[in-house]
Amino acid sequence: MAEIISVNNGHVVGYGSDVYTRIALDLFKDVFGSDTETFFVFTGTAANVLGLSAIIRSWNSVITASSAHLEQDECGAPEKFTGCKVLSVDTPDGKINRRLVEIHMHGFDFEHHSQPKVISITQATEMGTVYTPHEIRELADFAHSNGMMLHMDGARLANAAVSLDLPFKAFTADAGVDVLSFGGTKNGMLFGESVVFFNPALAADFKYLRKQAMQLASKMRFISVQFEAYLSSEVCLRNAEHANRMARLLFERVSGIKGITITQPVQANAVFAIIPRKIIRPLQEKYFFYIWNESISEVRWMTSFDTTPEDLDGFCKFLASLMV
Amino acid sequence: MAEIISVNNGHVVGYGSDVYTRIALDLFKDVFGSDTETFFVFTGTAANVLGLSAIIRSWNSVITASSAHLEQDECGAPEKFTGCKVLSVDTPDGKINRRLVEIHMHGFDFEHHSQPKVISITQATEMGTVYTPHEIRELADFAHSNGMMLHMDGARLANAAVSLDLPFKAFTADAGVDVLSFGGTKNGMLFGESVVFFNPALAADFKYLRKQAMQLASKMRFISVQFEAYLSSEVCLRNAEHANRMARLLFERVSGIKGITITQPVQANAVFAIIPRKIIRPLQEKYFFYIWNESISEVRWMTSFDTTPEDLDGFCKFLASLMV
Amino acid sequence: MAEIISVNNGHVVGYGSDVYTRIALDLFKDVFGSDTETFFVFTGTAANVLGLSAIIRSWNSVITASSAHLEQDECGAPEKFTGCKVLSVDTPDGKINRRLVEIHMHGFDFEHHSQPKVISITQATEMGTVYTPHEIRELADFAHSNGMMLHMDGARLANAAVSLDLPFKAFTADAGVDVLSFGGTKNGMLFGESVVFFNPALAADFKYLRKQAMQLASKMRFISVQFEAYLSSEVCLRNAEHANRMARLLFERVSGIKGITITQPVQANAVFAIIPRKIIRPLQEKYFFYIWNESISEVRWMTSFDTTPEDLDGFCKFLASLMV
Amino acid sequence: MAEIISVNNGHVVGYGSDVYTRIALDLFKDVFGSDTETFFVFTGTAANVLGLSAIIRSWNSVITASSAHLEQDECGAPEKFTGCKVLSVDTPDGKINRRLVEIHMHGFDFEHHSQPKVISITQATEMGTVYTPHEIRELADFAHSNGMMLHMDGARLANAAVSLDLPFKAFTADAGVDVLSFGGTKNGMLFGESVVFFNPALAADFKYLRKQAMQLASKMRFISVQFEAYLSSEVCLRNAEHANRMARLLFERVSGIKGITITQPVQANAVFAIIPRKIIRPLQEKYFFYIWNESISEVRWMTSFDTTPEDLDGFCKFLASLMV
Repeated sequence: MAEIISVNNGHVVGYGSDVYTRIALDLFKDVFGSDTETFFVFTGTAANVLGLSAIIRSWNSVITASSAHLEQDECGAPEKFTGCKVLSVDTPDGKINRRLVEIHMHGFDFEHHSQPKVISITQATEMGTVYTPHEIRELADFAHSNGMMLHMDGARLANAAVSLDLPFKAFTADAGVDVLSFGGTKNGMLFGESVVFFNPALAADFKYLRKQAMQLASKMRFISVQFEAYLSSEVCLRNAEHANRMARLLFERVSGIKGITITQPVQANAVFAIIPRKIIRPLQEKYFFYIWNESISEVRWMTSFDTTPEDLDGFCKFLASLMV
Repeated sequence: MAEIISVNNGHVVGYGSDVYTRIALDLFKDVFGSDTETFFVFTGTAANVLGLSAIIRSWNSVITASSAHLEQDECGAPEKFTGCKVLSVDTPDGKINRRLVEIHMHGFDFEHHSQPKVISITQATEMGTVYTPHEIRELADFAHSNGMMLHMDGARLANAAVSLDLPFKAFTADAGVDVLSFGGTKNGMLFGESVVFFNPALAADFKYLRKQAMQLASKMRFISVQFEAYLSSEVCLRNAEHANRMARLLFERVSGIKGITITQPVQANAVFAIIPRKIIRPLQEKYFFYIWNESISEVRWMTSFDTTPEDLDGFCKFLASLMV
Repeated sequence: MAEIISVNNGHVVGYGSDVYTRIALDLFKDVFGSDTETFFVFTGTAANVLGLSAIIRSWNSVITASSAHLEQDECGAPEKFTGCKVLSVDTPDGKINRRLVEIHMHGFDFEHHSQPKVISITQATEMGTVYTPHEIRELADFAHSNGMMLHMDGARLANAAVSLDLPFKAFTADAGVDVLSFGGTKNGMLFGESVVFFNPALAADFKYLRKQAMQLASKMRFISVQFEAYLSSEVCLRNAEHANRMARLLFERVSGIKGITITQPVQANAVFAIIPRKIIRPLQEKYFFYIWNESISEVRWMTSFDTTPEDLDGFCKFLASLMV
Repeated sequence: MAEIISVNNGHVVGYGSDVYTRIALDLFKDVFGSDTETFFVFTGTAANVLGLSAIIRSWNSVITASSAHLEQDECGAPEKFTGCKVLSVDTPDGKINRRLVEIHMHGFDFEHHSQPKVISITQATEMGTVYTPHEIRELADFAHSNGMMLHMDGARLANAAVSLDLPFKAFTADAGVDVLSFGGTKNGMLFGESVVFFNPALAADFKYLRKQAMQLASKMRFISVQFEAYLSSEVCLRNAEHANRMARLLFERVSGIKGITITQPVQANAVFAIIPRKIIRPLQEKYFFYIWNESISEVRWMTSFDTTPEDLDGFCKFLASLMV
């Protein structure tokens, strides 16, 4: 917030030609490597769709987990904007690997079939799990050896960094990722996401793509200063560390409650649990969360940068009261 | 052929306003019911994509079998042209049902999620199996009760009619199908497919859609006369009956060969078989067919209106010689 | 700014289901009428494109001035997202009328031709001129009598309101406009634009359209509170009144300078002038403005809510010094 | 016709891998040069749209005459399929030149503006006029010097060749054209158009584009044999020569009739005339033709390969009777 106020005075050039944006973009080079080209957009969906648009043509396909945001929660934006086919694979923990991806690796050079071009993974995944750098590298090598690329949806990248205790670069640019969506909104920013290319050639025409996709901010400095604060002061890591810690705390608290089954390893800021069907509604009336899998009564609880231990106390107490 | 020659003289009005097209379209009303509105296009892919385009908006999804032509063999044309998400379900025999479809029936009214709008089935399926009218009616009722529609890819509709020994209407319009792709190319026509609406309201703007999709034939009469001959003289049924009979004959011949496992019921004009991996290549050098499932060495053999018993003799003899 | 800070604490529901958004949307009903349905998006391009998307299909065309933002400055976003054809008409002052539009009013019901469906006008125009309510009503009646609709790009709507000395409603909803882009960014807001429908039926599926177009803000309250402040406290009118006054002041100052020709009536916050070609570059080095028409050495100077008389003093003094 | 019959027997491989298609494609190399890569599609609209798709991205614009088929008669197919903006220029005779095009040559490198990428011309034009090789070369050089390409819609290419008395190559490949739509339907073929690339690199991914655009013919040999006959036996030139001659004959006949004004030079197979408004309707009841410009009562009469002098006799006699 403070950062936004500081740039809300004086006249500056619009559409990202300002000094604040320059500083923020340079900071991305510091964090991810000097070959990095970064572009700011408004939403996580836009970051994913435009990152993909830059590296595919309409006759390509993108392979991803069936639980991926890209597949489940973007209302068809990838298909609408790119014209591509999104192929999904089922996975128990939100992570995909070479073996799972292979089912869609056919039809190359056959014009009747959408040509596989991108493998897309989410880090941390929608199931709260985290890829190791080794797992990412394996997928990158597999993609590259087939003339494809590796895309990473990093809406919760900071939570993964904290979980792995590694700098961002170690499990993105250095692990073979080609294009990254790097988000701030889920971790404390008011708005603003970024598309990060680790090969500048891929970004050559991106400015037109962004404008045509209605994602060019006229007062871009208001995104830029947030990213600058977010990256430079390590507030992103502090926020994520806190959220992850709260998730572990929640896990510890609820795993002791009889009748509740935790269904995923808690590696980031999410706890997945099967709970009695009849308590879902009363719990949702007091706390906001999504039902993950209606058929088995599985829910997802997310923690965030501003979850407090007291919030968890209240939640667990109320949950326990419903379990009686 | 003869029909094409007969209209290749004299001046006629273009783009479907000719008398031949009028006659052919009326014939569709005779066959499928008086509420039928039919439009001719060039390819089966176009028939599917445009039929769907008429009943969906870009934020919708279409649910189909993972083996469907729509999902596997249209190079992303449905996604490119409609902007929609195609959701697939695995099925052992190419047929889907309410239980299989239900996995994708969620997220209604939730703007983050593509809204399910169409269930699409193929008759006869890509696996050579055939839906009964009862099975179709169940899917139609399920779709309609959820505010959705039922689309049928009828590239092999004649093979299904012969297999079921029923008129086309009995398992399309009368079974609750909303939109049908009805094809002639796979069953003897030179070119030409049709999009058939059983509710005229759905077809209101279709003429613009067809033109914008580059599917308006200037000399449409050359498609129309083929369809007229195809439908009126029952050549389509004769052709399909022959093809189905050849498939059964092929099935009988090869099922006796040791080392060959037939994997699907033979209800139309296809035979699916697992054969020794090492004979696929030599067999393909002499006969054209697709490998269906590389990993289990499964192949698909199609028969057609001009397959002869002698063709099958030669094929089986050569196959047997490879099996030694 | 103050309004944003006030909502930057506490947990609220995302994606526009919060109380701040509810209040802001109700305020639009107060201002534009109770039938109004409003949706917030990020950019002016998005407001235009999505407003149009809601009322057209891909085979339609949109008729607009050749100087319109829609035609010149959206990098093809309308075509890409809607698939429509944008037809433009030349106009000396940025305003179009029935006579100018008529050149494109043909080909109705002819499937080879994109079907005209929308007339789009900008208020105030890109040339700094303003439509009277009577002129708008004439275009609306003409559109409606041809089965078409009237769209208004209101990126500078407040400037027009001040210029006309009329409430917004008088020259939008009450003058027959069907869909309005109402912007705040050009008049003091940090970001945030709105799509305003005066017939709720047009907005029925808009939430899916917005999400699929990557324009659904997860923390929408940060847009909402700005619009609330903007509309309720009349800050928008104060800002626009100031900008318009500065434009008139600028006009008075420069029209006295020999060698400068003012080319448009100054009705809002823009001054168009032909100036000596050789001074453009030096002037741009100190002040930001666009060359409007290279071939005749015409430039556009915009004033805004934070232009001061002192700014104008400096500008005119520097300009005069270059004219020597 | 005879050619189609000859390939309507025996089994051949589908989708263009047959020997007839190979022969026809080689013939294009003979006619247009060995670097030529040709693809068959179904319609002239498809040939234009796909040829453009191969050389532009969605943020580009295409500059063409306002009378071009591309602009007037494709129901927005170029915009829908490519996402591009089509910019048109008015021209009295259907021909454009560097000076006319320049009005749209701005905004390069400016991300708010669709980037001009292609100049598209029609040969012979929709007004029945013909570009000289010199005029084409000038446009090609102008395009190339701006990083753009030259596209030619050759729906009536044979009429132009006859009119210029030059081989096709002289005013296409040799004059700097990059991509050509070469049509047969308007000149005697039943159906079938082609997209011809003079630089193979441009065609690299075209097979996917064609399939995704629903333009891949399964029984492509029926197009191929027509093109083979069309090109090899010079039937195309004979047909075009005849049509052009009939147009000149028509011109001579009607230019003597008082009250009729010929408005375009007759260089190909079209005659444009202003005729009394009141005779248009009765004339159209007996003869099919389009009104070209309603406001000035201008009509277009086309001749074709099967127009006979007797047809013209009848037409002129009837026309004269109406003029009384």
